[in-house]
Amino acid sequence: MKGSTISLMDIDEDRLNSVYRLAKRYSAEVKFDMTVLRTKNRREAIKDSDFVINTAMAGGHQYYEKMRAISEKNGYFRGINSVEWNMVSDYHTIWGYYQLKLAREIAEDVEELSPESWLLQLSNPVFELTTLIGRLFKIKLVGVCHGHMDYRDIVGSVGLREKEMEVESMGLNHTIWMTKFKNRQENAYPILREWVDKEYHSFYKGWLTTTRSNPLSVQMSPAMVDMYNEFGLVPIGDTVRSGSWKYHRNQRTKVRWYGALGGFDSAIGWKFYLDSEKRHMSSINNALENTKESLSNLFPSGISDEPVVPILNALANDVRGNYQVNVINNGIFDGIRDNVAVETPSVIDGKGIHRIGGRKLPKKVMNFSILPRIQRMEWALEAFTDGGKETLLEWLMADPRTRTNKQAERVVEELLSLKENKEMAKHFN
Amino acid sequence: MKGSTISLMDIDEDRLNSVYRLAKRYSAEVKFDMTVLRTKNRREAIKDSDFVINTAMAGGHQYYEKMRAISEKNGYFRGINSVEWNMVSDYHTIWGYYQLKLAREIAEDVEELSPESWLLQLSNPVFELTTLIGRLFKIKLVGVCHGHMDYRDIVGSVGLREKEMEVESMGLNHTIWMTKFKNRQENAYPILREWVDKEYHSFYKGWLTTTRSNPLSVQMSPAMVDMYNEFGLVPIGDTVRSGSWKYHRNQRTKVRWYGALGGFDSAIGWKFYLDSEKRHMSSINNALENTKESLSNLFPSGISDEPVVPILNALANDVRGNYQVNVINNGIFDGIRDNVAVETPSVIDGKGIHRIGGRKLPKKVMNFSILPRIQRMEWALEAFTDGGKETLLEWLMADPRTRTNKQAERVVEELLSLKENKEMAKHFN
Repeated sequence: MKGSTISLMDIDEDRLNSVYRLAKRYSAEVKFDMTVLRTKNRREAIKDSDFVINTAMAGGHQYYEKMRAISEKNGYFRGINSVEWNMVSDYHTIWGYYQLKLAREIAEDVEELSPESWLLQLSNPVFELTTLIGRLFKIKLVGVCHGHMDYRDIVGSVGLREKEMEVESMGLNHTIWMTKFKNRQENAYPILREWVDKEYHSFYKGWLTTTRSNPLSVQMSPAMVDMYNEFGLVPIGDTVRSGSWKYHRNQRTKVRWYGALGGFDSAIGWKFYLDSEKRHMSSINNALENTKESLSNLFPSGISDEPVVPILNALANDVRGNYQVNVINNGIFDGIRDNVAVETPSVIDGKGIHRIGGRKLPKKVMNFSILPRIQRMEWALEAFTDGGKETLLEWLMADPRTRTNKQAERVVEELLSLKENKEMAKHFN
Repeated sequence: MKGSTISLMDIDEDRLNSVYRLAKRYSAEVKFDMTVLRTKNRREAIKDSDFVINTAMAGGHQYYEKMRAISEKNGYFRGINSVEWNMVSDYHTIWGYYQLKLAREIAEDVEELSPESWLLQLSNPVFELTTLIGRLFKIKLVGVCHGHMDYRDIVGSVGLREKEMEVESMGLNHTIWMTKFKNRQENAYPILREWVDKEYHSFYKGWLTTTRSNPLSVQMSPAMVDMYNEFGLVPIGDTVRSGSWKYHRNQRTKVRWYGALGGFDSAIGWKFYLDSEKRHMSSINNALENTKESLSNLFPSGISDEPVVPILNALANDVRGNYQVNVINNGIFDGIRDNVAVETPSVIDGKGIHRIGGRKLPKKVMNFSILPRIQRMEWALEAFTDGGKETLLEWLMADPRTRTNKQAERVVEELLSLKENKEMAKHFN
C-alpha cells in the first residue's frame, strides 16, 4: 500500500485536524510512504477514490443518549432502539434516521463521483446499511465488522490453540453463529460441549470476577452458554450481546446473563464503554501535544486485528485471503431473501469478493434468530425509506415493553419533539 | 356430482350417526342420487377416494377453552395462542399440537391409501396446516377458507352492486388484502376512499347498534378502516379480526376497534359464537327427531356460498372457474419463500389448480403483516415438529403480555400439566 493517498474527511474541524496530525506524524515515525490530505468537503474526498471507508456516526453518541433517556422515561428500558436480536447500544436502526440518511448520501456520492470505487461500510448498523445501500445502488459494496474475531475467547478458554483452529461463523451482522469449529481438521464442538458441561461452572467464577471491573466481555457469559444449549451452535461476538428478550427485560435479567454489572449494554456497561472511548480520545490528544514522545505506545507496531487494511490489500494488490464480510445475499444463503445482506466468510483477491455459496443454518437458528432479526431490519428500513408515524408505532406494537398504545404514541411524540429531530419529525409526519 | 359416494368419518359415534342420518334424509328429500357411508375407521374412509376433506378439530372447543383459562390466569389475555395477526380464537397454532398431529396423520393416510386423491384442508389453522402438509408430503393439496367472501359487506355498505364487481384478495390465510376492487372494470378504490372519508362516520353508528346484538360482524369495524388507512389496502374477512397488538391489548382496546362487545374474539363475542354453534347443533338434532318436517328450513335449496362443492365440481367435472385457494407458494408470490402456503385467486378445472403468477403486495403490507405472520407460522411449526420447551418459551419471549421470564415458564408449566396434555407435555420436554 506504499505510495497511497489517504484523504481524511470530517465536518468537525478540530477532530479532522487531530486525526490529520496523527496520521502525518505516525506515517513519518514508521517511515511509511503515504500522502495524507484533509478536507471538510465529502465530495472532494470521495471523488476518484479506489476505496471509500465510511466510519461516521451522524449526531454522535450524546444525541442517541438523549433519545435513550426519553425512551426510559416512557418505560422503554435501554431505549426503543434496543430490541430482540439487536440490544447493541450504538447499533442505531429505528431511530437512526440521520445515520441511515448519511450512509445513503455517501453511497450516492460514490456512485456519482467514484463509480469504480469500493465502499467499505464500517459504521453501524452494518446489517441495515449494507442491505439498504445494496438495494439502492449498483456500487461495489462490502460491510465490515470485527465481532467475529471473538471466537478466540472460546478457543482460549477451552484450552485449544488458535493456530490449530479453523473457525467459521455466519448469519447476519451481529447475529452470527459458529458453523465450523475445527481443531487440526477435526470437529472440535464435542470438546467444547464437554468443557461447557464440566468446566464452565468453575470457569464462570473467574469470568465473573474479571467482568466486575470490565463489563464489556460477554463472549464467555452465561447468555452465550444458554444460546449454545438452545440452538446447538455458539453465538459469536456481538450476537451474544443480543438474543431474545429473555436476556434483556431489565437490569436484574442482564445481571443474571451477563455478569455483575449487566454486561456491555446495561446502563453501567454502556457508560463504562463511553467513558473508555473518551479516555482513548484524550490519550490521543495528549500524545499529539507531547510531540517528542513516540506514538508506538498508542499504536504498537505490526498489523492490527482489524480486517480493513488486509481487505484493502487483498483487493488492491491481489493478495488472496479469507475474510468475514457483509454482502447482499443473492442466493448464497438458503432461506434468506436475495436482497438481504448476510455476513459470511468469503475469499477476496484482486478480482473482488468471491462469496462461497451453499450456506445454510439450522432451522431453529433461522426461525428464532435470523427471521426475527430480518423482520426488525425490514421495519427499520421501511421507517427510514417511507416514513409515516405508523412505521414507528408498528415497531412499538410488537415490543414487550409497550403496555398501552398511549405509551407508544407518547414516546414517539417526545422523541420527535427533540430539537435535533426537527427534520426527522417531518419525515415521520 | 350425481352418483357420488360420500364416506362420513368421525371418532364420536353419536355425532357420526347424526350427520349420517342428516345426509341420508336430505339427499332423499331433494332426490339427489348419492351413496352415504359411515365409519369410525379413518383409513377405511380415506382409501381410494377422489377427494378427502379434513374438517376435524382435535380435542374440540372446550379443550382449548381450558388452555385459554390457564393462560388468562397467568396474564395472557385471550390465551397464549392469540398473537399479532392471529387473534382468531379457534385458529390453534402454538397450542394446536393435537390438531397439527391429526392433520399430518390424515395427510399420511392420503399419501399411503389414496395417493391420487385431492386433500381439501378445511379445518384451521389452514395457513399452518397447508404449509406443514405441503412441506412433508407430495400429495394434491388445497387449503380452503370462506373468509374472503366478506368483501361483499364492503360492496353492500358502499352501495355498489355485487354483480358488477370484480374483486381479488391475497396474502396468507386470514391475512389477506384486497388487491383488486373493480366496478364495471374500473378501479373502485377511489369510491371506497371517499365513502370512508365522508360516510363512514354516520354508517358507524348503525353498525355499532347491530353489533351490540351480534358481535361477530367485523368487516366494517373501525379496525378495518384503521388498517385500510395505514396500509392503503383493505383487509378482508378474518384478517380484520387480527392485526397488530394495537387492536387487542385488552377488552377496552377491543371495544374501541370492534364495537361495544369487543368483536368476534373478545370473551363476550367468542362466547356468543360458541353458543350459536351449540344452538345450530341443537336445531339439527331437533330436525332429526322431527322426521316429518322438511329439512329445507335448515338447508335452503340451491348451492351455498361455501366454495367446497364448486371446487370439487371444477376438479371432478372439468368445470373451469375462479376460486380462492391456499397453495404452496413456489414462486407465485414475490418476497415470500417458496415453501410457505399463500392464499391467492386461482383457476381450477379438470387438470387441477392453475395458480396465477406474478403476485405481489405493497412493501408496507409485506413488512408489517405478511412477515410477522410468517414468523409466527414458522415458530408454531418448529414447536410442533421439533418440540422442546424452549420453542414454547421463544414464542412467549416476543409476546407483549410477558412481563417476566418466570411468568412465561409458569404458563407453559401449567398448560403442559393439563391431563389432556400428557402426550403434548412429552413432546415439549
